[in-house]
Amino acid sequence: MELIDFRPRRDQYAYTFGGAAPVMRIKPGTALRLWTEDAFNYALQSVNDLASEKVNLAEVNPQTGPFYVEGAEPGDTLAIHIVDLAPARSWGASAAIPFFGGLTSTDRTAMLQDSLPDTTWIYHVDSATNTVGFESRFGDLTVQLPIEPMLGTVGVAPAGREVRSSLVPERFGGNMDSPEMKAGTTCYLGVNVEGALWSLGDGHYRQGEGEACGTAVEGAMNVTVVVDLIKGGGPAWPRLENDAHYMTVGSSRPLEDAWRIGQVELVRWFEQLYDLHQMDAYQLLSQMTQAPIANVVDANFSVVLKAAKQYLPARSAYDGMHALMRERATSLGTITYD
Amino acid sequence: MELIDFRPRRDQYAYTFGGAAPVMRIKPGTALRLWTEDAFNYALQSVNDLASEKVNLAEVNPQTGPFYVEGAEPGDTLAIHIVDLAPARSWGASAAIPFFGGLTSTDRTAMLQDSLPDTTWIYHVDSATNTVGFESRFGDLTVQLPIEPMLGTVGVAPAGREVRSSLVPERFGGNMDSPEMKAGTTCYLGVNVEGALWSLGDGHYRQGEGEACGTAVEGAMNVTVVVDLIKGGGPAWPRLENDAHYMTVGSSRPLEDAWRIGQVELVRWFEQLYDLHQMDAYQLLSQMTQAPIANVVDANFSVVLKAAKQYLPARSAYDGMHALMRERATSLGTITYD
Amino acid sequence: MELIDFRPRRDQYAYTFGGAAPVMRIKPGTALRLWTEDAFNYALQSVNDLASEKVNLAEVNPQTGPFYVEGAEPGDTLAIHIVDLAPARSWGASAAIPFFGGLTSTDRTAMLQDSLPDTTWIYHVDSATNTVGFESRFGDLTVQLPIEPMLGTVGVAPAGREVRSSLVPERFGGNMDSPEMKAGTTCYLGVNVEGALWSLGDGHYRQGEGEACGTAVEGAMNVTVVVDLIKGGGPAWPRLENDAHYMTVGSSRPLEDAWRIGQVELVRWFEQLYDLHQMDAYQLLSQMTQAPIANVVDANFSVVLKAAKQYLPARSAYDGMHALMRERATSLGTITYD
Amino acid sequence: MELIDFRPRRDQYAYTFGGAAPVMRIKPGTALRLWTEDAFNYALQSVNDLASEKVNLAEVNPQTGPFYVEGAEPGDTLAIHIVDLAPARSWGASAAIPFFGGLTSTDRTAMLQDSLPDTTWIYHVDSATNTVGFESRFGDLTVQLPIEPMLGTVGVAPAGREVRSSLVPERFGGNMDSPEMKAGTTCYLGVNVEGALWSLGDGHYRQGEGEACGTAVEGAMNVTVVVDLIKGGGPAWPRLENDAHYMTVGSSRPLEDAWRIGQVELVRWFEQLYDLHQMDAYQLLSQMTQAPIANVVDANFSVVLKAAKQYLPARSAYDGMHALMRERATSLGTITYD
Repeated sequence: MELIDFRPRRDQYAYTFGGAAPVMRIKPGTALRLWTEDAFNYALQSVNDLASEKVNLAEVNPQTGPFYVEGAEPGDTLAIHIVDLAPARSWGASAAIPFFGGLTSTDRTAMLQDSLPDTTWIYHVDSATNTVGFESRFGDLTVQLPIEPMLGTVGVAPAGREVRSSLVPERFGGNMDSPEMKAGTTCYLGVNVEGALWSLGDGHYRQGEGEACGTAVEGAMNVTVVVDLIKGGGPAWPRLENDAHYMTVGSSRPLEDAWRIGQVELVRWFEQLYDLHQMDAYQLLSQMTQAPIANVVDANFSVVLKAAKQYLPARSAYDGMHALMRERATSLGTITYD
Repeated sequence: MELIDFRPRRDQYAYTFGGAAPVMRIKPGTALRLWTEDAFNYALQSVNDLASEKVNLAEVNPQTGPFYVEGAEPGDTLAIHIVDLAPARSWGASAAIPFFGGLTSTDRTAMLQDSLPDTTWIYHVDSATNTVGFESRFGDLTVQLPIEPMLGTVGVAPAGREVRSSLVPERFGGNMDSPEMKAGTTCYLGVNVEGALWSLGDGHYRQGEGEACGTAVEGAMNVTVVVDLIKGGGPAWPRLENDAHYMTVGSSRPLEDAWRIGQVELVRWFEQLYDLHQMDAYQLLSQMTQAPIANVVDANFSVVLKAAKQYLPARSAYDGMHALMRERATSLGTITYD
Repeated sequence: MELIDFRPRRDQYAYTFGGAAPVMRIKPGTALRLWTEDAFNYALQSVNDLASEKVNLAEVNPQTGPFYVEGAEPGDTLAIHIVDLAPARSWGASAAIPFFGGLTSTDRTAMLQDSLPDTTWIYHVDSATNTVGFESRFGDLTVQLPIEPMLGTVGVAPAGREVRSSLVPERFGGNMDSPEMKAGTTCYLGVNVEGALWSLGDGHYRQGEGEACGTAVEGAMNVTVVVDLIKGGGPAWPRLENDAHYMTVGSSRPLEDAWRIGQVELVRWFEQLYDLHQMDAYQLLSQMTQAPIANVVDANFSVVLKAAKQYLPARSAYDGMHALMRERATSLGTITYD
Repeated sequence: MELIDFRPRRDQYAYTFGGAAPVMRIKPGTALRLWTEDAFNYALQSVNDLASEKVNLAEVNPQTGPFYVEGAEPGDTLAIHIVDLAPARSWGASAAIPFFGGLTSTDRTAMLQDSLPDTTWIYHVDSATNTVGFESRFGDLTVQLPIEPMLGTVGVAPAGREVRSSLVPERFGGNMDSPEMKAGTTCYLGVNVEGALWSLGDGHYRQGEGEACGTAVEGAMNVTVVVDLIKGGGPAWPRLENDAHYMTVGSSRPLEDAWRIGQVELVRWFEQLYDLHQMDAYQLLSQMTQAPIANVVDANFSVVLKAAKQYLPARSAYDGMHALMRERATSLGTITYD
C-alpha cells in the first residue's frame, strides 16, 4: 500500500468543499500521512489573542486537500479510514467568539442583546498523562482532561454545482464536529463529482458533545488515513463504522431535523444490512440507538445515530470495507510523525 | 428509615402532573416500594392488539402517585433516588402508533401523508440472560437486547396553577424518557406546590436514545425509591446525579432549545459547585459535556447534558444528598418484590 | 337576544384556561358586554414602572370568565362573535420585559447573555384621530398609529384534564395574539369539557404581527360578544371567520410547526366546505393563502392562515353561523359602555 | 437610460448564485427587458407530465443572468427595481412533487411515510379578466384567481467563495419566494464579489404566502428591471422598498430564526433611518410590523417584515434610490414585449 506524506503550504489550504483545485491525485487504496492547521488558522496563540481581533472568519477550518481520487464518479462511495490522530503542537486553543456558539445569539438566531465577552483559553498538552489542561480565565480552577483527538471536518465536494464553506456540515460531510470522527473509524461519503475531491481538517484535541461554546480544544493535527473507493452505493448522508458501531450523521436545522435525517438513514442502512422491513428496522433501532448530539453551533446542527454491533448478527457493510481498512491500518505498523 | 409498600388500584392512577389528589402523605427520608402499570395502561398484550383500537390516549402513562411530602413548599428541592427497578411482567410491548413518534408526521408536525401501519411488537423477558427479545413482525430477524430498566416519567406538580398531561416533559420533570433515569440516579426537582405532589411511572425495560418510534419496551415495573426534601434551592429544571455524572435535562421545542435549556442549567450548576465565572463554566463544559438525546417524540423534546465527575475535583452537591441516598439504598439490603 | 353585562372584580380574574370555577352560566345565543383588565394586570401605569419590579408574572393576562355555556359538551363547537372592542382607558402600555420577547434570549431559547434593558412605553389614546401615540424613550421621535383593537386571548378549557396558563396559545385557543381577533370576527373553538368554560382578555389597542418585543399596546378593553353553540363538529384547532376570510390558527414550536398545523387545518376545512380532494385543497390553498405570523413570543408561537372569500363560491360554514352572528350584532344597535 | 433586451438561450441558464460566468456586463443605471423560463424548466406542460418523471431537480429555477455590474465591489449595495412583470405564456403549471413542499415529509424533515401522489395542475391565463384558472384534478371545482406576477428568485453571488443552488434563499437573496417581489418594488442586496453577478428567475403568475405545496403558478415571465449601484452600505440581508413599505427578508431554519433575522434587520434599518435607539426601534416596530411568511418549503424558509410608510415621517433610504427608480420606470413609458 502506498503511503503518501503531505503537509500543505499556507497558500495551499482550501476553505471550501468544492470549488478548490485538487492538491494531488491519488489511487484508491492509498495511505496518507497528513498535517492539518488548527481551526483558527493559527491566529490564537495566547489568551491575549482575541478572536474578534485576530481570527479571519473567511479563513477558518483550513482544509488539507482536496485530493482527487482516480476513478471516483458521482454515485460512488468514498471510504476514509482514520488510522491515527496525534496533536501536532504542545497546546490547543478555544474561544468564545462574539455572536458565535450555542449559548449566545448568532447571525442566525438573531437577537438584540450584547455579545458575551470575547475570551480565549489555551490548553497545554501533557504527553505524560495524555491530557490537556483547562485553566480558568476568571478564577483558579484547573482541570486535566484526557486527550481524545478527532477531526471536526471530513468531506467531499457537494452535489448540484454547489461550493460550501468549510464551516458547513451537510450531506457531503464537512464540519460535523463529532467526537466519533476518531482513530479507528471508517467514514463513508457519497461521491458527487469526478475525483470526489475530499479534504479534512479542524483537528480537536478533545470536544464535548454539542461543542457548546462553538469551538473545541482546537489544535494542529498529524493525521494518518487510508482512502478507498467503492463503486456505486453512495449513501445520501455520511455513514461511519468502527469496530463497535454502525453510525450515521444528520446535519440540518432545526436540530430535530438533523436527528430525523440521521435516524431515517440508519433505518435505511439496517433495511439493507439485515434485509429488514422498514417498520422492523424502525422498531429495532428505536430500542437500541444511541443519539449523541455532535454540534449545535455550526451552519447546520449535527446529530450522530449509533447502533452497537455487539447485540447484532455480524454483517459486512460495503463488502467488508471496514475490516479491510483495519487490516491495512495494522499493516502500517506504529505511526510516527516528524 | 421507613419503607412503604404501595401498589395503586386501577382507579387510583393519575394521568396528570398536578390536579390529582395525593394517594398518600409521606415524610422526607422515606423509602417506597412501588408498582407502576405500563405506558399503554395494559392495553397491548399481543401483536394483534393495535394501538388505534386498544389504546385510550387520554389514559396513557398512568402514574403511581402523587405523593404529598410533608413540609415541602414552593422553592424547595425534592430529591428522588432510584434504588431499584425490576420488570414486573415477563414481557413488554412497543408500538408504532399512527401519527405518533419521531419518523412520522404528527398532530404537531402536521402533514397530509397517510400514517405508517399501526404495528405492535411484544418483547419477551429472558431472566437468565437478562435480555428482552426483539422479534421482527415482517421477517425473521430476532435480537436479544439487554434489559436496562428505566422510568420514562418522574415529576412533580407544575407551577403557575397548571396541570399537565403525563405525556409532557417540562420544568417539573415528567415524561423525559431518558435512559439515565435508572437505578443509582438521584433526581432533583424544584417544588412548585405544597407537598410537591410527585409521581412516577412509564417503566421501560429498555429504550434507545431519542425513542424514535415513540414508545420504548414498555412494561409494568417494580420500583424502589428513597425520597427526601432539601429546603430551598429548587432548580429551574430537573437535575440528575449518579456516582459518575452531574446531569441536567432540558425539554422544549425545537430540539435545540431543549439542548440550550439543559446546557445553560449545567453551566449554572457548575458556577455554584465550582465557584466558576460563567465564561469559565461555559468553556469547561464545552469540552467535557456529553449530550445524549432523550426523546424527540413527546409533547416537548428532551436532551440530557452530562458532566463526568471523574475529571473534576470532588464536590457535594445539595450538601451530599446523593451520597446519603446511596447509603440509604445500601441500608435497604437486597430488594425483592412479591 | 339576552344582553348580559359583566365586569369582574379583581378577585374574580382567572389566570388559566381550565381549572377555574365559572363566573356565570349563560345560554347559547347570548350577548355579553364585558370589561377586561390589561395584560400587565394594571401594574405598568407610567414609564417609570418597570416590569421586573411591578409585574407579577404569575398573574398576567387576567381573564374575564370563564363562562359556562349550558348544553356544551365535549366535541361541540363554541362560536364567539366579536361585536365590538373599545379601549377602556385613555392610555395603553408596552414593555420589553427582561428575557421575554422575540429578539432576546428567553427561558426557552436559553443563552448566557445579559438581558436587554427593562423598558416601559406608554401610549396615549387620541380619540379624535383614533390613534395611539408612540413616544421614544431614548430620543425624540413620536408616531401616531391607528387604534386597531383586538383580543390577545380567547379560549376554552383544554382537553385531557389539563389546565394551562393564560400565556399559552394552543388547540383550545388561548393567547394567540393575532390582530385578526377583532370586531367582526367569529371564532370557532372545539369544546373539551362540559360547559366549554370560555374566557377572554388581553386587549390590545394595536399590535404588530409577531408581537416582536413580547407585548402589544396593552390596555383595558370594553368587549361585546355574542356566544352560541353548535352541536358536534368541534374543530381540532381554532377557526376564525369574518366577512372577508376563512382562517385557522396554528400554535406550536418551532414556528414551522405552527404554520403546518394551521395550513393542514385549512386544507381540512376546505375539503369539507368545497367537497374537495385533499390534493386539490392543498393546491388551491397553496396559491391563495395569506400567512401572517401572529406571535413569536408566547409559550407557543402562532400563525394565522387566511383564505379570501372573494375568489370562492359562497359557502355557509357551520350552517351559516357567521352570517347569523352578523345579524345579531346588527340587532344590538350602537354599542356603548358606561 | 440604456435599455438592454436579453433572452437567454437554453444553454445560457444559470442554476446557481455564484459560480456561473456572467452573460453580460452592464453599467449602473441600466434598464433591462428580460425573459425568464419557468421554475420547472418547461418540463411540465400538461397535467399528464409528472414531476418525478419529467423534472430534473438539478436544473430547476433556471436563472437569467448573471449580470456583471461595472464598478460593483464587495460591501456595495446593488439596487434592482422591478418595473414590470408580465406572463410570457398563456398558462402556468404547479405540482406536488413527491417529498417536496410544506405539508409533506422531505429530505430534511425526513420521515418514513409514503409520498403524497405526484400531481400536476395547469392554470390557464385569461387576459380579459387578468386571472388564472384553478381546475380541480379530482373533482369539479374551478376558481379564477387574479394574476399577481412576482419573481421567486432575485439574487447576487454569495460571500465566502460559496456557490449556492438557485433553490436557496439566503443573505444574498435568491429563492425567497415572496409575493412582495413584484412590480414597483426595489430590492437592495449586499454585493459580495466584484461585479455583483446578479440574476433573476422563477416567475410566478401568483403564489400564496408560504407556498404550501412547494410550487406556485409557475410560468415563463417577461421582466423589466432597472439596476443601479450604491457604493458601500451593503445590507446584511435583503431589503425591499416600495411606495408603501420598508421591508426586510430573513431566510433560515427553523422558521422563527428567519423571522428573527428579518425583524432584527428591520430594527437596524430603522435605527439608521430615524436615528432611533435600538430599544425604541424594537418597540415601534413591535406595534407596526406586518410579518407575512414567504415560503416554508425551500432549502431555507423565508419571512418578510414590513413597515408601512404611511404612519411614519418621510425618509429617503439609500439617498432616495427608490424614488429615483420610480422616475426611471416612468420614463420608460408603457412596457411591451415581443
